[in-house]
Amino acid sequence: MTKSTNQSWGGRFSEPTDAFVERFTASVDFDQRLAHHDIQGSIAHATMLARVGVLTDAERDAIVAGLDEIDDEIRRGEFPWSVKLEDVHMNIEARLTDKIGITGKKLHTGRSRNDQVATDIRLFLRDEIDIVAAELARLREGLIELADREAETIMPGFTHLQTAQPVTFGHHLLAWQEMLARDHERLLDCRKRVNVMPLGAAALAGTTYPIDRHVTAELLGFERPAENSLDAVSDRDFAIEFTSFASLLLMHMSRMSEELVLWTSAQFDFIDLPDRFCTGSSIMPQKKNPDVPELVRGKSGRVYGHLMGLLTLMKSQPLAYNKDNQEDKEPLFDTLDTVKDCLKAFADMVPAIEAKADSMREAARKGFSTATDLADYLVRKGVAFRDAHEIVGESVAFGIRETKDLSEMTLDELRQFSEVIEADVFEVLTLEGSVAARNHIGGTAPDQVRAAASRARDALKALR
Amino acid sequence: MTKSTNQSWGGRFSEPTDAFVERFTASVDFDQRLAHHDIQGSIAHATMLARVGVLTDAERDAIVAGLDEIDDEIRRGEFPWSVKLEDVHMNIEARLTDKIGITGKKLHTGRSRNDQVATDIRLFLRDEIDIVAAELARLREGLIELADREAETIMPGFTHLQTAQPVTFGHHLLAWQEMLARDHERLLDCRKRVNVMPLGAAALAGTTYPIDRHVTAELLGFERPAENSLDAVSDRDFAIEFTSFASLLLMHMSRMSEELVLWTSAQFDFIDLPDRFCTGSSIMPQKKNPDVPELVRGKSGRVYGHLMGLLTLMKSQPLAYNKDNQEDKEPLFDTLDTVKDCLKAFADMVPAIEAKADSMREAARKGFSTATDLADYLVRKGVAFRDAHEIVGESVAFGIRETKDLSEMTLDELRQFSEVIEADVFEVLTLEGSVAARNHIGGTAPDQVRAAASRARDALKALR
Amino acid sequence: MTKSTNQSWGGRFSEPTDAFVERFTASVDFDQRLAHHDIQGSIAHATMLARVGVLTDAERDAIVAGLDEIDDEIRRGEFPWSVKLEDVHMNIEARLTDKIGITGKKLHTGRSRNDQVATDIRLFLRDEIDIVAAELARLREGLIELADREAETIMPGFTHLQTAQPVTFGHHLLAWQEMLARDHERLLDCRKRVNVMPLGAAALAGTTYPIDRHVTAELLGFERPAENSLDAVSDRDFAIEFTSFASLLLMHMSRMSEELVLWTSAQFDFIDLPDRFCTGSSIMPQKKNPDVPELVRGKSGRVYGHLMGLLTLMKSQPLAYNKDNQEDKEPLFDTLDTVKDCLKAFADMVPAIEAKADSMREAARKGFSTATDLADYLVRKGVAFRDAHEIVGESVAFGIRETKDLSEMTLDELRQFSEVIEADVFEVLTLEGSVAARNHIGGTAPDQVRAAASRARDALKALR
Amino acid sequence: MTKSTNQSWGGRFSEPTDAFVERFTASVDFDQRLAHHDIQGSIAHATMLARVGVLTDAERDAIVAGLDEIDDEIRRGEFPWSVKLEDVHMNIEARLTDKIGITGKKLHTGRSRNDQVATDIRLFLRDEIDIVAAELARLREGLIELADREAETIMPGFTHLQTAQPVTFGHHLLAWQEMLARDHERLLDCRKRVNVMPLGAAALAGTTYPIDRHVTAELLGFERPAENSLDAVSDRDFAIEFTSFASLLLMHMSRMSEELVLWTSAQFDFIDLPDRFCTGSSIMPQKKNPDVPELVRGKSGRVYGHLMGLLTLMKSQPLAYNKDNQEDKEPLFDTLDTVKDCLKAFADMVPAIEAKADSMREAARKGFSTATDLADYLVRKGVAFRDAHEIVGESVAFGIRETKDLSEMTLDELRQFSEVIEADVFEVLTLEGSVAARNHIGGTAPDQVRAAASRARDALKALR
Repeated sequence: MTKSTNQSWGGRFSEPTDAFVERFTASVDFDQRLAHHDIQGSIAHATMLARVGVLTDAERDAIVAGLDEIDDEIRRGEFPWSVKLEDVHMNIEARLTDKIGITGKKLHTGRSRNDQVATDIRLFLRDEIDIVAAELARLREGLIELADREAETIMPGFTHLQTAQPVTFGHHLLAWQEMLARDHERLLDCRKRVNVMPLGAAALAGTTYPIDRHVTAELLGFERPAENSLDAVSDRDFAIEFTSFASLLLMHMSRMSEELVLWTSAQFDFIDLPDRFCTGSSIMPQKKNPDVPELVRGKSGRVYGHLMGLLTLMKSQPLAYNKDNQEDKEPLFDTLDTVKDCLKAFADMVPAIEAKADSMREAARKGFSTATDLADYLVRKGVAFRDAHEIVGESVAFGIRETKDLSEMTLDELRQFSEVIEADVFEVLTLEGSVAARNHIGGTAPDQVRAAASRARDALKALR
Repeated sequence: MTKSTNQSWGGRFSEPTDAFVERFTASVDFDQRLAHHDIQGSIAHATMLARVGVLTDAERDAIVAGLDEIDDEIRRGEFPWSVKLEDVHMNIEARLTDKIGITGKKLHTGRSRNDQVATDIRLFLRDEIDIVAAELARLREGLIELADREAETIMPGFTHLQTAQPVTFGHHLLAWQEMLARDHERLLDCRKRVNVMPLGAAALAGTTYPIDRHVTAELLGFERPAENSLDAVSDRDFAIEFTSFASLLLMHMSRMSEELVLWTSAQFDFIDLPDRFCTGSSIMPQKKNPDVPELVRGKSGRVYGHLMGLLTLMKSQPLAYNKDNQEDKEPLFDTLDTVKDCLKAFADMVPAIEAKADSMREAARKGFSTATDLADYLVRKGVAFRDAHEIVGESVAFGIRETKDLSEMTLDELRQFSEVIEADVFEVLTLEGSVAARNHIGGTAPDQVRAAASRARDALKALR
Repeated sequence: MTKSTNQSWGGRFSEPTDAFVERFTASVDFDQRLAHHDIQGSIAHATMLARVGVLTDAERDAIVAGLDEIDDEIRRGEFPWSVKLEDVHMNIEARLTDKIGITGKKLHTGRSRNDQVATDIRLFLRDEIDIVAAELARLREGLIELADREAETIMPGFTHLQTAQPVTFGHHLLAWQEMLARDHERLLDCRKRVNVMPLGAAALAGTTYPIDRHVTAELLGFERPAENSLDAVSDRDFAIEFTSFASLLLMHMSRMSEELVLWTSAQFDFIDLPDRFCTGSSIMPQKKNPDVPELVRGKSGRVYGHLMGLLTLMKSQPLAYNKDNQEDKEPLFDTLDTVKDCLKAFADMVPAIEAKADSMREAARKGFSTATDLADYLVRKGVAFRDAHEIVGESVAFGIRETKDLSEMTLDELRQFSEVIEADVFEVLTLEGSVAARNHIGGTAPDQVRAAASRARDALKALR
Repeated sequence: MTKSTNQSWGGRFSEPTDAFVERFTASVDFDQRLAHHDIQGSIAHATMLARVGVLTDAERDAIVAGLDEIDDEIRRGEFPWSVKLEDVHMNIEARLTDKIGITGKKLHTGRSRNDQVATDIRLFLRDEIDIVAAELARLREGLIELADREAETIMPGFTHLQTAQPVTFGHHLLAWQEMLARDHERLLDCRKRVNVMPLGAAALAGTTYPIDRHVTAELLGFERPAENSLDAVSDRDFAIEFTSFASLLLMHMSRMSEELVLWTSAQFDFIDLPDRFCTGSSIMPQKKNPDVPELVRGKSGRVYGHLMGLLTLMKSQPLAYNKDNQEDKEPLFDTLDTVKDCLKAFADMVPAIEAKADSMREAARKGFSTATDLADYLVRKGVAFRDAHEIVGESVAFGIRETKDLSEMTLDELRQFSEVIEADVFEVLTLEGSVAARNHIGGTAPDQVRAAASRARDALKALR
């Protein structure tokens, strides 16, 4: 019987792995994406091993030189990946041994693939988080600038998708920005917990070699070594926490997308998206479709799915490492790609949004959007709020019957419903008056919007 | 300004698509997997168009010949896929026009990409379902044969993972088979609903050409044309229903896997899996890990995630087609691949499971597994069930203190707890007696297991 | 040491259950909902036990009479539920023994709570499915009738929420009906698999009593006894399959809801919902909010969540019964209540929807909705489809610049883009012409809509 | 026409709400749980309104006194809840007006139910988080103390549920503690984002009254007012973030539960759980079932489900408030109850876990658990790691054939595989030697476990 000689664990086995099983259980097709971080981790490990005397300096130098060559090969696309070698780790180690001989085999001293892969993913994810954070900041910036420009542009504010009260477009954009600001905070909170080093946990219990985990942690920029070896190799919280962050982010982006789709419809007609962010129809020549927001909206499903998948994956797993955990990588990678793409698409597109101010204003003018202002006016004249509400309700019912907005009624018409109404009422029924009156922190008054944009700009800078 | 001339919808656009957006919104990277079914659909469409007089026979022949060539090119890996052409449909159509000239442009008459893609996925999924059904049948068959062989092998049956009553290994395997039988039924129910033809719905409203949808449906083996064009282009139920089937299947396989993992542990030691289905450890030379069941167990997460993703995708979408729907393909494809791989792995592995009958028997002998038989014995002697339960509970408490199984106690010891116990009690306390006594449909008696295996075999044959 | 004497399993225990644990593990707060079906199951079980001679006829009669009394007590709200007695089963059995003495204890002969609860839920769910099916049919009926009435009402059809082509409102409503028709089929497929009897599986292995499961199955209206005892007590597929059905249904209802919310907005203004289905605002007197569709849309989350919860629950559970399974009931009950409420709300509301035909028509008239018709016209004049598409695209671009719909252009203006255009073009550019021309099965032509309504009516009748 | 006079928004409506719709859309059945926090919020609001001059001090005093009375009524269970009044807010306000007359109606000045409910939930959730944090700390404490006591107890460490290397039980318990430490951090991160005040956002745009949001925020202990009114009323991130935390926590508890279930099985037999945390069987008198961990494991499904439900709920919602959001409360409440119950059950149970040290040790002694130590021994003698691995693999294969553990082989037997092996090998093959040798931070050596317990104790104290 021929043994499968390439594998790292053949000794006690009496038959080679089934060919299909070999492919089914191999991860190299997707985990090769970790190669650069695997090499980084190996270089730090070898450096530490030399520092504590497990390797000689010459051995370390050979290993480091070999790994650097391999890193180059991979970058140039010339690395001979092999499914027979299961995963990225064995592929690189086998190649190293090809290159530098028996010394290559010493690299694995004092570690296991269990702590190695956990370290690789954390190094990789930490770098990716920094990219995501930068794109998120770019999108926030775009929103803040647009909001500042549109601080006085009036549009209808909706609840239940019914016209509620006039707001400014800038105020609406800053609502989006607030969502993203929370996501940004969560991302940075997540990064803290990613930045902890499993290396040294070995298979599950630590190692008998005199390793110094603080050295390796420092070399790799980790905040600290993980406290417990069993936990270190079985923990996948970082992937789940990142995917939770991503789910909230994509949820927010699905809401923005929904609004962008609504606003570009002929019915709303609030904004224009440049042609370069839209596509057309193969059958309907007139169509200009807001594909980017639609696709981003749809991608929320993908990310929610990955979150559910990862939570399911970990449910009920006994400690420590189980093969199930190999399934952590694809959802994490796809979540990262999705998040980066969606953020880039939006960060590019947002500054190009063109507000159709007249159309927005016209929509706000209709639909009794200043009804609350009338109620507040009545209260200021001494009517209890709940009674004022009734009076305005009746005025609106009248307006619907007569197809007249509140600002279009005569004073006499208005006074049918309450005698406290006087000529000064017409000031509060204007759109400008309405928004300007909401002049407190968080309110939609243009001055508040500009102040909020300024605070947001500062908060964002403070994160950098 | 240069226009993006390759696209199917450039007319009304004043600037080309942004390069990143082009890549972001393109689907050709993954939807090229539908190419063969896209061509099948196009051939049937052209054939129908010729039959109703929209194409001449010569045009139809040119189209069919061109498409056949393209199908070959794709199969040989020589097709020049282009992201600029967005998707599989435009890639193939552009290539057809390259080959046969202006006639190629006529193929799209009376259809739209919206009904085309929905048709392609259904054709594709129908074929894949047939492959899945065959693998599922093979796994069921393997279980039935193994169950028949192991109809008399006694093992402990568990509830709460505590030894409950002796069962036969064959009986346990048939419990797995029953789960799969329900999955098989659900798969065939799903297939009925997949096998309905969207083609002819065009973009959303039908077409002004005199198409005959019954002809196309017959040519493509669909049961009927879809009843409503708006629904036909916006419906993705088939993908969700298939993924629901797959989630239940993987849930079942996660349960089987959990048991295989338990049973191969040193603590249970109930079965052996051949080395070719296992892998080892890079650091612990003694390890033989049940990677296949672990990985299958983990893959339940992936499939649950896709189900959640697809349900989220469709939530709140207004009719008819939206770009969001492009996100239906990747989760469906990955679910199909996962299901096929997991079924293949299990169908290959199950017949190779080796029961360790002695070890199973020894485990069943311990743990007071015949306590229920003693209670039933007491009831047959006239004791009310709830009282019998109390008596046996006290005997067991005594047994735990004295570390004696029920069958190891003396008659006097047993009679401390009830005077109705006589010498014949020892017959009911044997494992063989216990399993043989559960002799009704669904019970664990060896005769029942063999009869159940036989019925299962027939039921499976009837599906073919 | 005092023992907890109320429990059904005290014998081997040396200390009573912790008070918090007693409450934490008890299910009676929610499983009392199964009481009536538990009693039905017990009556059938006792009847069977008498038929096979395990009970005397007098014992059976006493049991049945006692259970009937208890059923009445429960219905009248006079039953003394006790958390100490853990669950609905023990509560009823203890009460029975209070009433009829020692004979009550014999009822549990040949069964276990494991097969009992599985039987109860299936009996309960089967009845609930019949209620759900009736409400679903009522909603479908309402849609069909409304569609028939609105078969000629023209509205814009959308893709990407952009005006695409004119359709009829009746056609749109039938798209909803098609979604529900698939749900209805799935519900009936699910019912087949619910209607199988676990009773007789006892704890996990069957029983040593000479039970006749075919008798019990017939008494309870089950199609057949479950084939395998281990599977029978550990299977919860029925709950998951029902919740999958419900998830698809609520997904469809979230899409209908989204459209109802859009259509009642001031921007779309396509329909009116009667005041009795809407609510107002405590602060904005003018508001009339489409609460019913909004809430139904939101309830999709609840049902998706229950599906994920149940799938997670069952993942990786070893056979047979585990306490985890107690968690199956609350999500199933809540899903049932949600489904029934949402269907009732819609079935009541749909017939009261008032189409605002003028507003719909006006929206369809804009937005170049007959552009495809122009392209088709060109094709009929001999232009290849893809070229026709380009020509129309240019006409639309011109129309946007000049703010003229296609039907508002002069013949000369149109002929700028293609000389094959003649005076007869204006026929195809009308809304009526456009919808009438889509005159094939599944198309939006009024005749097709009426025919489809008629077929739908027949299909629905056939299910009854 | 009779109007529904109880409602807060009747004015413009021409018919009363449908009776079923009234019940369907009402939330008072579940949101009454917020009553105390609603009153807290109202008192602060009234206090602020008086401070800025919108209310007189006398009005404020009347309102505060009335609300205090109502709070008492609710606490005593004497409050007359009414579904007609829709929700907790209207119920309380109506009651206040009953009590103090027209002044009661003034309380709603400058706010809306939209900002009110968002404020209530945040106040409520903040208090609940503090309770959760305390229970979590109690559980962590229990684990740390038990780990410290069991720092030298040897058990097998598993990977793939195969015996891997010996570890100490204390080390394993600290792995659990590490999981919970991350959860604890996430909970406190979440609390920061919960503690932001929506009040003052009013319906969506802020209010025209001269409110001072900093005053209200301070009165209610919020860190700051929310920055944007549209975001403040539509944001439900806090519920999702808390449920994400809970999903990770329950995932961890499902892993602990899985291990507790395994360890109490006859096959593992590693620990004993006191009878008061277990239950028995109604049919199998010998059973002692680990119900608490099983139920906790199952409850992971419920919490995952709520997370998915909430994410789905918010997907694609346009701003600002929509009725959908009413669906946020039940999943949040149920998640809180589940988390508190599961933590309490575990915090009570963990200190009562009895390790069966002999049984653990016996299991560790088998299964070649010191194979890695032999490999490391060889490396120290100059063999390259990968070669050492091969040598040990062959020794193990020999041991399996001869049923001898490594420590049971003779020196000659061991030397068959490598001549570098000498008599000192037997030191490294003992369990004590093996664990003691893993003597670095994170390793399983008893000294490391005690040091880790001590650090964990300090870290926990620092949080308080």
